[in-house]
Amino acid sequence: MKFIHEDFLLHTRRAARLYHQYAEAEPIFDYHCHLSPRDIAANRQFKDLFEIWLEGDHYKWRAMRANGVEERYCTGAAKPFEKFQAWAATVPHTLRNPLYHWTHLELKRYFGIDELLDEESAARIWKKAGERLATPEFSAQGILKRFKVAALCTTDDPTDSLEHHHALAASGFPTRVLPTFRPDKALAVHQPAHFNTWLKRLEEAADTEIPDLAHMLEALQARHEYFHAQGCRLSDHGLAQCYSDFCTLKTASAIFARARRGRAASPAEQGQFGAFMMLFFGRLDADKGWTKQLHLGALRNTNARLLSQLGPDTGFDSIGDYPQGAALAAYLDTLERERALPKTIIYNINPADNYVLGTMIGNFPGDGIPAKVQMGSGWWFLDQKEGMEWQLNALSNLGLLSRFIGMVTDSRSFMSYPRHEYFRRVLCNLIGGDVERGELPDDETLLGPMIRNICFANARQYLAVPGVWSQEEARKAPAHPAQRAVSRR
Amino acid sequence: MKFIHEDFLLHTRRAARLYHQYAEAEPIFDYHCHLSPRDIAANRQFKDLFEIWLEGDHYKWRAMRANGVEERYCTGAAKPFEKFQAWAATVPHTLRNPLYHWTHLELKRYFGIDELLDEESAARIWKKAGERLATPEFSAQGILKRFKVAALCTTDDPTDSLEHHHALAASGFPTRVLPTFRPDKALAVHQPAHFNTWLKRLEEAADTEIPDLAHMLEALQARHEYFHAQGCRLSDHGLAQCYSDFCTLKTASAIFARARRGRAASPAEQGQFGAFMMLFFGRLDADKGWTKQLHLGALRNTNARLLSQLGPDTGFDSIGDYPQGAALAAYLDTLERERALPKTIIYNINPADNYVLGTMIGNFPGDGIPAKVQMGSGWWFLDQKEGMEWQLNALSNLGLLSRFIGMVTDSRSFMSYPRHEYFRRVLCNLIGGDVERGELPDDETLLGPMIRNICFANARQYLAVPGVWSQEEARKAPAHPAQRAVSRR
Amino acid sequence: MKFIHEDFLLHTRRAARLYHQYAEAEPIFDYHCHLSPRDIAANRQFKDLFEIWLEGDHYKWRAMRANGVEERYCTGAAKPFEKFQAWAATVPHTLRNPLYHWTHLELKRYFGIDELLDEESAARIWKKAGERLATPEFSAQGILKRFKVAALCTTDDPTDSLEHHHALAASGFPTRVLPTFRPDKALAVHQPAHFNTWLKRLEEAADTEIPDLAHMLEALQARHEYFHAQGCRLSDHGLAQCYSDFCTLKTASAIFARARRGRAASPAEQGQFGAFMMLFFGRLDADKGWTKQLHLGALRNTNARLLSQLGPDTGFDSIGDYPQGAALAAYLDTLERERALPKTIIYNINPADNYVLGTMIGNFPGDGIPAKVQMGSGWWFLDQKEGMEWQLNALSNLGLLSRFIGMVTDSRSFMSYPRHEYFRRVLCNLIGGDVERGELPDDETLLGPMIRNICFANARQYLAVPGVWSQEEARKAPAHPAQRAVSRR
Repeated sequence: MKFIHEDFLLHTRRAARLYHQYAEAEPIFDYHCHLSPRDIAANRQFKDLFEIWLEGDHYKWRAMRANGVEERYCTGAAKPFEKFQAWAATVPHTLRNPLYHWTHLELKRYFGIDELLDEESAARIWKKAGERLATPEFSAQGILKRFKVAALCTTDDPTDSLEHHHALAASGFPTRVLPTFRPDKALAVHQPAHFNTWLKRLEEAADTEIPDLAHMLEALQARHEYFHAQGCRLSDHGLAQCYSDFCTLKTASAIFARARRGRAASPAEQGQFGAFMMLFFGRLDADKGWTKQLHLGALRNTNARLLSQLGPDTGFDSIGDYPQGAALAAYLDTLERERALPKTIIYNINPADNYVLGTMIGNFPGDGIPAKVQMGSGWWFLDQKEGMEWQLNALSNLGLLSRFIGMVTDSRSFMSYPRHEYFRRVLCNLIGGDVERGELPDDETLLGPMIRNICFANARQYLAVPGVWSQEEARKAPAHPAQRAVSRR
Repeated sequence: MKFIHEDFLLHTRRAARLYHQYAEAEPIFDYHCHLSPRDIAANRQFKDLFEIWLEGDHYKWRAMRANGVEERYCTGAAKPFEKFQAWAATVPHTLRNPLYHWTHLELKRYFGIDELLDEESAARIWKKAGERLATPEFSAQGILKRFKVAALCTTDDPTDSLEHHHALAASGFPTRVLPTFRPDKALAVHQPAHFNTWLKRLEEAADTEIPDLAHMLEALQARHEYFHAQGCRLSDHGLAQCYSDFCTLKTASAIFARARRGRAASPAEQGQFGAFMMLFFGRLDADKGWTKQLHLGALRNTNARLLSQLGPDTGFDSIGDYPQGAALAAYLDTLERERALPKTIIYNINPADNYVLGTMIGNFPGDGIPAKVQMGSGWWFLDQKEGMEWQLNALSNLGLLSRFIGMVTDSRSFMSYPRHEYFRRVLCNLIGGDVERGELPDDETLLGPMIRNICFANARQYLAVPGVWSQEEARKAPAHPAQRAVSRR
Repeated sequence: MKFIHEDFLLHTRRAARLYHQYAEAEPIFDYHCHLSPRDIAANRQFKDLFEIWLEGDHYKWRAMRANGVEERYCTGAAKPFEKFQAWAATVPHTLRNPLYHWTHLELKRYFGIDELLDEESAARIWKKAGERLATPEFSAQGILKRFKVAALCTTDDPTDSLEHHHALAASGFPTRVLPTFRPDKALAVHQPAHFNTWLKRLEEAADTEIPDLAHMLEALQARHEYFHAQGCRLSDHGLAQCYSDFCTLKTASAIFARARRGRAASPAEQGQFGAFMMLFFGRLDADKGWTKQLHLGALRNTNARLLSQLGPDTGFDSIGDYPQGAALAAYLDTLERERALPKTIIYNINPADNYVLGTMIGNFPGDGIPAKVQMGSGWWFLDQKEGMEWQLNALSNLGLLSRFIGMVTDSRSFMSYPRHEYFRRVLCNLIGGDVERGELPDDETLLGPMIRNICFANARQYLAVPGVWSQEEARKAPAHPAQRAVSRR
């Protein structure tokens, strides 16, 4: 039998039935990814498997390095096909790693390839995939259509012009491509050189001067409004831990002023400043009805030597073991006390914290909003079968799985859309297994809709983004320019 | 097939056999719960499913809130049947949550109801259950009899008069209803208003004045003796972490004095005071041969806004991620050095700590007392299949499962007694599965007694409470008044 | 069926096939253990089951104590057979504990005994095993031969003369018995009495005086070279957490000087000194191409009363819950920046940290060395089925299982060699199960070599120790005296 077959990962008859009946056909709402809006707007055509598959994939680089492959074949100067060969030679060494599943699922779904990738098959697969990549079906937009991506949210700096989002909205391209407001750089008072460079960009984007914190807040609010007008309904933050050492505007302003003059904030000061800013961002999101995403717990840039050579996001990050509970509670509670807690999705990187976060989400209900604080799907190193199962089980045992808004690719690659299929198979496999063991009622009128909702409808209803809408079509939101473009279709 | 059937949760033939042969018929020793002694003594009759099932159940409130139900249907002003309807409508959304199992197991065991609860079946089930609740079989005492509860230990403040326990002992009611000494309020020097209010009650209960720490210690010791005389043999403490910053009587006295005058202790001072008091309580328990329970790691009252509206224990607590190992070791060791370490049960709320605590219990053996320090059964958020299995597996791998004293309901509701059944099914399912896979010998002379012991006999022997006794009928303990009452039967 | 049968722990047909075909026959490379080199050199013959099985086994003592057995039958004055009887009576109480499996696997593999051990069978088993122990096949060397141990690495203090290793190398005994450099005592500036006693031994071993830190470093380097000459290629460190508060030579020298004069270092000073020394040791290992082992996270000597009676390593240690990520990253990164990071194996004692460490190992690739930083096999309390599976799954999901260097006994007992078999069964069971479920390709040309490599070849290639060699026979290392002895064979 082929490795990737119809019932891959579906280990019981019920699991297979539930998947094929309820999950398979659902559209995709990829509400968190790192795709390039430029590539989508330009409808990029990929030259070869290197461009679409290896170009920026630090998962693969890590595996290759662990396999003893030299850097020149990962991020270095080797030729595209050489790099592909090095990857192909590594693949058989990734048995039991999610890369082994993803690789073959992607080859199958994009190119209909059933062969296992290895050194020997590399050239054949390179050629066959290359031919298909040359067709319009495999342009950036073609791929989104092919995988029924109803909407996707990219990840963008507040200083971004969003020109590509604007162009896409105007173009009538049916997949909603919406920005996400990710202001991590606004917290970097401990790195004044970076901070001031970024402030310059913010000044330009907001067409203002930023001599002090008050003006930065104004500029950020203006950008938040601009993003909103472009259809943005999500923000995102990458934090080792939540900041919880809240301080006054006066204190934060003094820290800002020093950083503005080039003096790095101490860790304690940066903590205060971060706490101040995160409250500010929370209020902005709550005010506009956005959803805030918190990506908690990564330990980044651990290898200074290779960081200085290769830059960030090149495969030298890992899972941190920071305490999360008390600080996260303090952050959410502080906003809740002012009734300024937005809808929030907490992504967890350390499986040891699943139960901590799975209980935290239950502490902040929103009158009438089901599962207002969500436990995000398995993130980064947890975006694999074991990690997904842990997340699904924790959420099931501690909260309401039925209200889960489901999967995101979180990917930089247009080859990652089968991750949604992968997730849905894992989900249906768990539920089908429970039914087989009698731990869930054998009743598809109960289980079918739940599965469908987790695949798509819950995210749609919860996020209520322009063009995908609901929550009563987002309470008839005023038609912003970009939204007009969206609804013109 | 009915959802709750004879072999529910028993996935192999051996599991089913072991459960029905060895576990099912054992009586219950519910040595930790939060039932109301007043309700038992008054032999309360419950008017409807709301009173017996929803009245104080923060698990259900959390699920309802997560389902978007308004507070008015949880703790608010809605009518009992409206609240029940809101709960019924939430039930289908709890698929894969333990509430889904508990709900239907309880409906089946109490009322013989096989229907799944949902909006449509709500009225029928309300009516049918209501009829049965009107019968004497469903009074508080009737229920305890029905579920073969040999003994239960409530949770009581040292200032409690224990009048209901006394009345019950005098009444000849066959289930032993014994108090547990839970002096958490004695540590609250950081909340002087609460602390002094409570001290006033302690003064009255102990019929003394408490101008200083020495007098508080005397009063507590007197109450400890009074509890002992009423058949109490367990204490209990709810702590985020163990206190381990031990201090002298002089330091503790100074902290007490300031709190007595209304000045709140700093966190550091409260830590010292807590450490001092916990050693004091340890000595009291060791001296009397009691068992100390430590409930470690909860992160409580995270939502200040709703706490101020609804009070504590209403569903806004979660799992903390505090370091536990070193402080717990320091606490146990300090008592051990003075040979004042009582039998101790450590309940763990964070599954990430199971292995830390599962090894800790092995460090403090008691000459001749098997498993003198116990790892408590799955607690609170862990009181479900996955959580129980983790606890059982950790204990099995790191210690002696055969010496485990088993399950408690830890519940405020008279509807929770099937939790013992649930636990026993999980236990037998694990063991039966091991046998099927050849990982345990297929020998019921080995496995049967082990299961029976975990269900009842181990707890009896370990706790040795009046009227249930053993450890050679608790070494022929002198007959206290309450114990006389008990043994009069 | 017998409890230990051919397919013990192998729950699918593929698992059984993979084990018998690829794993079973592989030789053993036990690169970390605590066997006594003296016993091997003297080819010790064991008098009875007590000597070979119970003499120093704190796992068994813990179980016996948890079973209520008095200390006199554990470490005390009882006679060997009495102690064995106490152990035998405890065995049925260890159901589901790894001791139950190990016990019967060891009885089967060493003595062909199929009976279950308990009070009743104790005398028969004592007798039967005793008879076999009297034969030459059961001498220390006989056992190593019987279990096809190609090489083993003991654990040795830098002050050790290594006379037994030398004698063994000279003797032509085919199993390579190599030392490991474990300099934990060099960090003990917080215990000046112990520290100075040990320095005296170091002075003697290095034939020098050590008035200051510089001289200690020189002496340690000399011993490191001496160990190298005796075939040593591994170092080892037992640390609660990595030290990361790096300091200058000047600061470290001052701390040393105070400890040398008998003044205990403060915890902060000890932390600085430890960090300084660990960098020093890292450089030594990197320079010589050794592999550094880090055993992280144990919480040792928790029971002061019994520690003072029985000494360390007697069963009063447990799993700590220290944060590991940031400090470990800092340590590895600091060495990496100087290009002085040796091959490193990180052993983890807390399963909650598996994912933290499983990602950390990917951050420090070595050009051309596959999996230069390794995640060590399940250690101590994790050296059991559940613990091994977690380690294997974490490593699989986060890194390359195929590059794993596999199992060690970490044992003080000559009866522990079936642990390798146990591990291999667990490994093959996981992989076979994956194949059955279609999660791995059903292709033995892929899976067979991977299994074989994990059993032996990966460790050989990675560690490249004298006499077992490779990495192109350790780049034709210059023939040291001990190595000459080794190659003389």
